[in-house]
Amino acid sequence: MKIGFVGTGVMGAAIAQNLLDAGHELTVFNRTKSKTAALVTAGASWADTPKKVVEQSEVVFTMVGFPNDVKQVYFEDDGIFAGSNEQTILIDMTTSKPSLAQKIAEYGASRGIKVLDAPVSGGDIGAKNATLTVMVGGQETAYQQVKPLFEKISKKVTLFGPAGAGQHAKMANQIMIAGTMTGLTETLLYTKAAGLDPHKVLDALSAGGAQNWSLSNYGPRILDDDYTPGFFARHFLKDLRIALQEADKMGLDLSATANAKRLYEVMVDVYDLGDQGTQGLINTYSKVDKENK
Amino acid sequence: MKIGFVGTGVMGAAIAQNLLDAGHELTVFNRTKSKTAALVTAGASWADTPKKVVEQSEVVFTMVGFPNDVKQVYFEDDGIFAGSNEQTILIDMTTSKPSLAQKIAEYGASRGIKVLDAPVSGGDIGAKNATLTVMVGGQETAYQQVKPLFEKISKKVTLFGPAGAGQHAKMANQIMIAGTMTGLTETLLYTKAAGLDPHKVLDALSAGGAQNWSLSNYGPRILDDDYTPGFFARHFLKDLRIALQEADKMGLDLSATANAKRLYEVMVDVYDLGDQGTQGLINTYSKVDKENK
Repeated sequence: MKIGFVGTGVMGAAIAQNLLDAGHELTVFNRTKSKTAALVTAGASWADTPKKVVEQSEVVFTMVGFPNDVKQVYFEDDGIFAGSNEQTILIDMTTSKPSLAQKIAEYGASRGIKVLDAPVSGGDIGAKNATLTVMVGGQETAYQQVKPLFEKISKKVTLFGPAGAGQHAKMANQIMIAGTMTGLTETLLYTKAAGLDPHKVLDALSAGGAQNWSLSNYGPRILDDDYTPGFFARHFLKDLRIALQEADKMGLDLSATANAKRLYEVMVDVYDLGDQGTQGLINTYSKVDKENK
Repeated sequence: MKIGFVGTGVMGAAIAQNLLDAGHELTVFNRTKSKTAALVTAGASWADTPKKVVEQSEVVFTMVGFPNDVKQVYFEDDGIFAGSNEQTILIDMTTSKPSLAQKIAEYGASRGIKVLDAPVSGGDIGAKNATLTVMVGGQETAYQQVKPLFEKISKKVTLFGPAGAGQHAKMANQIMIAGTMTGLTETLLYTKAAGLDPHKVLDALSAGGAQNWSLSNYGPRILDDDYTPGFFARHFLKDLRIALQEADKMGLDLSATANAKRLYEVMVDVYDLGDQGTQGLINTYSKVDKENK
């Protein structure tokens, strides 16, 4: 199948590579061209604009940074919609606003173009190992057509409902991760302050009621002082802001998530650590402590 | 081996039953006698006081509610120490203050009595299925002597260091669980408000970066409106209070844990739901929402 991929960052590049490995013909575009180099070496074609990617593809994936990037890449003159026709299926994997996903789907529908929102969970490891979880919103027919592609890049695909439902499911996911990341960070701070062996603590906690994916995957990275982004802190902050805006619209007061957002705000906006992975949150606490002394 | 068990609540009774099933001779005491009935029927002997339990046992486990209960059961006239001698090994499985664990160990040492702090994680299910995690503080020699007993009731036993280290490790564990429980609660509130199928959400989140023990074990119970205590909310609140007191002593500001404590305070102290399990936290949020309308 002819596949297009727009946005080849940490996650996008790994997903695109898996689609290439599955034998598909791949055309790529990324704002920073150098990030497509490995894919092009592996056999992908480069196109100069998102529009040109779509013109050469049956199914186009987008995975960019922020809702504004999504809006731009879909609606600009050289954008996704400019190159689409009634045969095109568009899949936005960016974690973005449910309302924007609905807007894109409605615009697509008005022109006979099928659109799905399909954000993922599982981080860089999940993207590389094709063990992601894909959360889809949109019409059943389009979903069934591209499901075999999702299955090449993930171990779990779920259609949650109409346009925007994939984004809502992803928000639910990020709210959960806000809990595991803040919990993990504070657990390790306590562990070190109490003089316990943090490796023993991670090992014991993994076996009981405290067990979680962040603990198993980010715990060891933190102990190695490895803050390489599996998932950028600034993207996670964006997700939490969207989740809280949506929650606010629904009349929900989610205080744990709001507290996590404030902590990531300090990390990204005050300490300028947004290019670290989400596990870098612990560096913010350390700085707060040092300054208080 | 002759084993004593003082405190046969939800957790204690299940652990004691596993020790009985392993072929040990068991003597039990509980403040509310009726809670020992099933154990006595299964072959355990009843003793009228903690002191009498100890007098008939080589190893005595205690698992009571709060630090003040621990202090009382160890130091009162008819208490644990009153019946102990240099052959006795005492194991407190109550989640309690690290400083109290140190005090008990020091008092024991001054009289030649071996004492361990050994709180557990894994809830009612872990206690029943002997899949608990045991976090131990105290001397290596006493630890080695009773390790085979721990192995009958758990799947993971770790000696973390001297007296109090088991309690510190348990605090680290509870800080992590504060993150998973608040995250899970807010995830489900968001899910319902967004009109997503909560079973599908739990299923998808279990497969990705949001995966955790609370989600898998308490998520389904919440969807069934089952707030039966696997672990009492009032006990969890006690644990969080201890954790934050200890963190404060160490100069740590753990804002996510502090926020979780405030939420459980509302549940236990304002809405009087302390006898529900920790998963009942979601009922507090619902009430807040209704009142704001």
